[in-house]
Amino acid sequence: VRVGILGATGYTGQELVRLLRRHPDVDLTYLGSSSMMGHSYQEIYPNRVEENGILAAEAVPELDVLFCALPHGITASRGPELLGKVSHLIDLGADFRLRSVMDYESWYGIKHPEPELLLSAVYGLPELYREDIQGHRLVANPGCYPTATLLALTPLLRASLLEPDSIIIDAKSGVSGAGRGLSAGTHYAEVNENIKAYGVGEHRHTPEIEQELTRAAGRRVTVNFTPHLVPMTRGILVTIYADVTEGVEEQELRAEWWKAYKDEEFINLLPVGTWPQTKFAYGSNQVFLQMKLDPRTKRIIIVAVLDNLIKGAAGQAIQNMNILAGLPEGKGLGGGGLWP
Amino acid sequence: VRVGILGATGYTGQELVRLLRRHPDVDLTYLGSSSMMGHSYQEIYPNRVEENGILAAEAVPELDVLFCALPHGITASRGPELLGKVSHLIDLGADFRLRSVMDYESWYGIKHPEPELLLSAVYGLPELYREDIQGHRLVANPGCYPTATLLALTPLLRASLLEPDSIIIDAKSGVSGAGRGLSAGTHYAEVNENIKAYGVGEHRHTPEIEQELTRAAGRRVTVNFTPHLVPMTRGILVTIYADVTEGVEEQELRAEWWKAYKDEEFINLLPVGTWPQTKFAYGSNQVFLQMKLDPRTKRIIIVAVLDNLIKGAAGQAIQNMNILAGLPEGKGLGGGGLWP
Amino acid sequence: VRVGILGATGYTGQELVRLLRRHPDVDLTYLGSSSMMGHSYQEIYPNRVEENGILAAEAVPELDVLFCALPHGITASRGPELLGKVSHLIDLGADFRLRSVMDYESWYGIKHPEPELLLSAVYGLPELYREDIQGHRLVANPGCYPTATLLALTPLLRASLLEPDSIIIDAKSGVSGAGRGLSAGTHYAEVNENIKAYGVGEHRHTPEIEQELTRAAGRRVTVNFTPHLVPMTRGILVTIYADVTEGVEEQELRAEWWKAYKDEEFINLLPVGTWPQTKFAYGSNQVFLQMKLDPRTKRIIIVAVLDNLIKGAAGQAIQNMNILAGLPEGKGLGGGGLWP
Amino acid sequence: VRVGILGATGYTGQELVRLLRRHPDVDLTYLGSSSMMGHSYQEIYPNRVEENGILAAEAVPELDVLFCALPHGITASRGPELLGKVSHLIDLGADFRLRSVMDYESWYGIKHPEPELLLSAVYGLPELYREDIQGHRLVANPGCYPTATLLALTPLLRASLLEPDSIIIDAKSGVSGAGRGLSAGTHYAEVNENIKAYGVGEHRHTPEIEQELTRAAGRRVTVNFTPHLVPMTRGILVTIYADVTEGVEEQELRAEWWKAYKDEEFINLLPVGTWPQTKFAYGSNQVFLQMKLDPRTKRIIIVAVLDNLIKGAAGQAIQNMNILAGLPEGKGLGGGGLWP
Repeated sequence: VRVGILGATGYTGQELVRLLRRHPDVDLTYLGSSSMMGHSYQEIYPNRVEENGILAAEAVPELDVLFCALPHGITASRGPELLGKVSHLIDLGADFRLRSVMDYESWYGIKHPEPELLLSAVYGLPELYREDIQGHRLVANPGCYPTATLLALTPLLRASLLEPDSIIIDAKSGVSGAGRGLSAGTHYAEVNENIKAYGVGEHRHTPEIEQELTRAAGRRVTVNFTPHLVPMTRGILVTIYADVTEGVEEQELRAEWWKAYKDEEFINLLPVGTWPQTKFAYGSNQVFLQMKLDPRTKRIIIVAVLDNLIKGAAGQAIQNMNILAGLPEGKGLGGGGLWP
Repeated sequence: VRVGILGATGYTGQELVRLLRRHPDVDLTYLGSSSMMGHSYQEIYPNRVEENGILAAEAVPELDVLFCALPHGITASRGPELLGKVSHLIDLGADFRLRSVMDYESWYGIKHPEPELLLSAVYGLPELYREDIQGHRLVANPGCYPTATLLALTPLLRASLLEPDSIIIDAKSGVSGAGRGLSAGTHYAEVNENIKAYGVGEHRHTPEIEQELTRAAGRRVTVNFTPHLVPMTRGILVTIYADVTEGVEEQELRAEWWKAYKDEEFINLLPVGTWPQTKFAYGSNQVFLQMKLDPRTKRIIIVAVLDNLIKGAAGQAIQNMNILAGLPEGKGLGGGGLWP
Repeated sequence: VRVGILGATGYTGQELVRLLRRHPDVDLTYLGSSSMMGHSYQEIYPNRVEENGILAAEAVPELDVLFCALPHGITASRGPELLGKVSHLIDLGADFRLRSVMDYESWYGIKHPEPELLLSAVYGLPELYREDIQGHRLVANPGCYPTATLLALTPLLRASLLEPDSIIIDAKSGVSGAGRGLSAGTHYAEVNENIKAYGVGEHRHTPEIEQELTRAAGRRVTVNFTPHLVPMTRGILVTIYADVTEGVEEQELRAEWWKAYKDEEFINLLPVGTWPQTKFAYGSNQVFLQMKLDPRTKRIIIVAVLDNLIKGAAGQAIQNMNILAGLPEGKGLGGGGLWP
Repeated sequence: VRVGILGATGYTGQELVRLLRRHPDVDLTYLGSSSMMGHSYQEIYPNRVEENGILAAEAVPELDVLFCALPHGITASRGPELLGKVSHLIDLGADFRLRSVMDYESWYGIKHPEPELLLSAVYGLPELYREDIQGHRLVANPGCYPTATLLALTPLLRASLLEPDSIIIDAKSGVSGAGRGLSAGTHYAEVNENIKAYGVGEHRHTPEIEQELTRAAGRRVTVNFTPHLVPMTRGILVTIYADVTEGVEEQELRAEWWKAYKDEEFINLLPVGTWPQTKFAYGSNQVFLQMKLDPRTKRIIIVAVLDNLIKGAAGQAIQNMNILAGLPEGKGLGGGGLWP
């Protein structure tokens, strides 16, 4: 598979480089960067020893798959041009995740430059929409918080085991999710030994979560989603609360997870009583899930963890590439993460 | 005020030492420790330069106030003996927080050694029960999670602005809350760069929170309470979700906070849009609060932060001591924390 | 004492605010800021609850003591103007630390705007130069690395117990030393779980250390000084290596420390075998020292720790203020730091 | 290659499992554990998804290569038995690193149970002793600090460019080097936001470093070696100071490194001015080196970094296995680490 990356120097871009360079069926031939054109990759990342290439201008060559890891708005505006050059485009940004132009424009605060492309894109969450993804030219790679949330909830909503109006998602993320851009909010001395909520009621992953939960529930779902910044680099943990449908037992909920995920290479249902930790997924494409039905409040408490840069970004994008290229979906992504 | 500490070498004990040594009206004359009797304090804490004393056996002298910072069960069993020696006992453990013997025994898993003492104790949360505390000989100093939660919710429940059955408390704590005892769960290499939920549906602060919320609401309140361990040493942040009573606006909720806390030295209502961070309270007795009513779900989202070892333990205990001794309540506790 | 701060919103500035607000003899009446004029202090630091003031323009009123916490170059250029207004100026920057204009200009890369002021300034390290400081109008507050290094070495060099040419200083610092300015080098995701050397052979504290060691040794001293950035917020640890003068024993070295520091409130000579940790000094004005003479190489290994923002900056500046104002030197600075 | 691990549940053991499971030519058939016999591997490490095996008793089957990751003393005492069963034994502990029984017994404080085995072992640092390793049945895998130090210094000492008596090694390590055993020194709340020296003048890697430097220099070398514990999980950085031989220039030192390492897959000589950070090596088998000759003191300052659990333990052991098995030395170990 002839592959390229636009935005190869961001955190997601360099994670793609790392993973693609050890993928046995990939020929990574194009690294595009608007700001670092002409520089060698190792000038920017001396530690990325597997990559000897030079950063190229943004004129994209012909490719089987192009990964776009650019700020929102940019990929969309170049969409038609890029699709004229490459067979498949996997966007790791937010430009094609929402099907509603109105939602995009109200949550992202800009006009969508190519609204008609929204309809031709597929939401690339392989464990839920594997069949849809095949054959699409334009894949919207999900956000990190939505990936964790949707994997936890979709099978349960599809089976009508939860009250859709009761869903509360309290999420905790490492700081790498904020990218390489400098800000007071990612300044070491003000993040270390500190935890804070941010974007309360306003985070842009909210409409993405609601869109897909609505699809699963077959009715409009509105959620509370509160992300928190935790003093660590990688990892997302989401704690989800929901009322179960009258009379539903924990065992029924577990059974739906089992049906959905028992053959999945990257989804791990932990034994009862073992709660996920973000470090379980550190440096891997794995997701770990656990739940408990509180008998006193009849609410289910679910915890899901993943590595925001891998299953929450670059790893999932490569899963999508593998699907598009007809390769085994987990190719190049196997195994567990680093411990400790 | 003649003062002593039982359990002077734990994290809470040494924080009491630090704060009491700079309190202008306190004469700290007794440092008790079962395990380190006869050792100088600085042998254990070379950094506690303000304390030149020797650790004494557990035979308590006559004192105005004794602080007990011992594992649960121990203080209660010595209760009658200690109350024979000292004018006031402030227990920083859990032995006198619950009024129901049954609750104590089911959540703590041991028989309460002196159940009749439960009724003579007062729950020592000054901002809520200041008048009750005066004149009591036995004060149960609240837990760290309950302090944050109750300060956030009590005024709102007293005013019937929230649906009592809808309360969900998602809490995040630094590791010092687990104390000095060694365990895999506090081993550096397994806590750093990691976040996890623990005690899901089973944490012992649950009945304490419910008891006091029930008192505020005037009807039985059951909550979901999920604590998480965050890779930092100090600090607690609680994120609380609740449905507001039909028709209630954010302004009404804010007004109740304002009425309750406008003159409080340690409670800070942040300007709209400024969300608390645990570091705001680091090393201080301060609490910071913020809220937002989500217009889409009609749920209030509240965030409260404090330093678990100060307002969540030693600082609050000294507030209680000040009340008992007729001193200004904030004496020795003023000012903000360390930054950054 | 009527006191003001220029540069009141940097990390050092806000630490001055915290400490001065709890100093019983200080009237803090002026908070100057070039960038935030007209804003309330709590807008910038919602956690600095002890400070209700408004940030003023840079026109300084008449004061007994003005603290300058500004980038180098600025204080010097305003020197004559400021000294016309205030009785004493304590500069927490680098403008008056070096007596040699040539050294200043070669290490700092700018022309010194008021070179004649260099001669009227005193190097304000109280434990070494207490008598000199009294009566000076212009005090150069030492850098954080030099403070730790000079306190460790000066008594030993004065007594000719070390070979001056053999001194190697390997220093480790938390990130707050780099200030509030944003840079890739202080971006959380690239500092956390990482340690690196920086400024190898080029750090600006080198000439300051050499100047004062030269004074102590009575002959020219040149050192190797290598700072490292450690993933923590506060604290400096310096590890110093030096050959002892032929025949010198560890006991003689310890005796010099003892003579120099036995009555010092802020210098702690730890018992043999107890090595300092930066956390011993966290949030305090304390310094902790330890040494070991390696019998195999005849080299002394010294470790010194302090809190870079307090004894390494704001706390030491207040010591200097106390000296200038005829107050007890430790006033408002007593006690140990936070633990854990 | 049929492979097994004794001590498969320690940090080094589980890192071996992770790396060996993705090695294409390895059949990992035996996981031995004294304490967890009969348990499934995922009970202990739910995140080690690549390993479905059951922990076996310590009776070792016939194997091509056995890795021993046990506390010192144990491997040695079982040495003859184990060598009767397996073709090659790679010891990741300290039992076979020192050639001198006297050194072993004085630094490790126990009698060596099988002193004659010391002579049949080879010191397994591939980049320096590749040819020696081939054909040996017993390989002593180097310690983490020695690996970094020896790679930095050996080519320079072999070429007589440094004064052997002047070497000072100031090392900084993450906490995982201390293993899974619980201790106050690895308790999160006391390690976080803290740095300290430990084992000053007494660390057991000292004689190992000296033995190999002596071999390189052709004369007795004694060093100062001071390790520090840094608040991070993985990574070692060593800062080395040494006087250069009269008249030697930086370029000559760099030339020796270049000759020694230009074809090495795992040794990276960074461009002048780019200093290594431990995170460069995080999760990889890579080493990064930089140096600077201080023209003022004529001392060289060298910085080397590696991941203590990989190049400092499990990764290097697999390099040794590859050599013994006639495979390409870097098989299964390629590529750079995680960033950020």
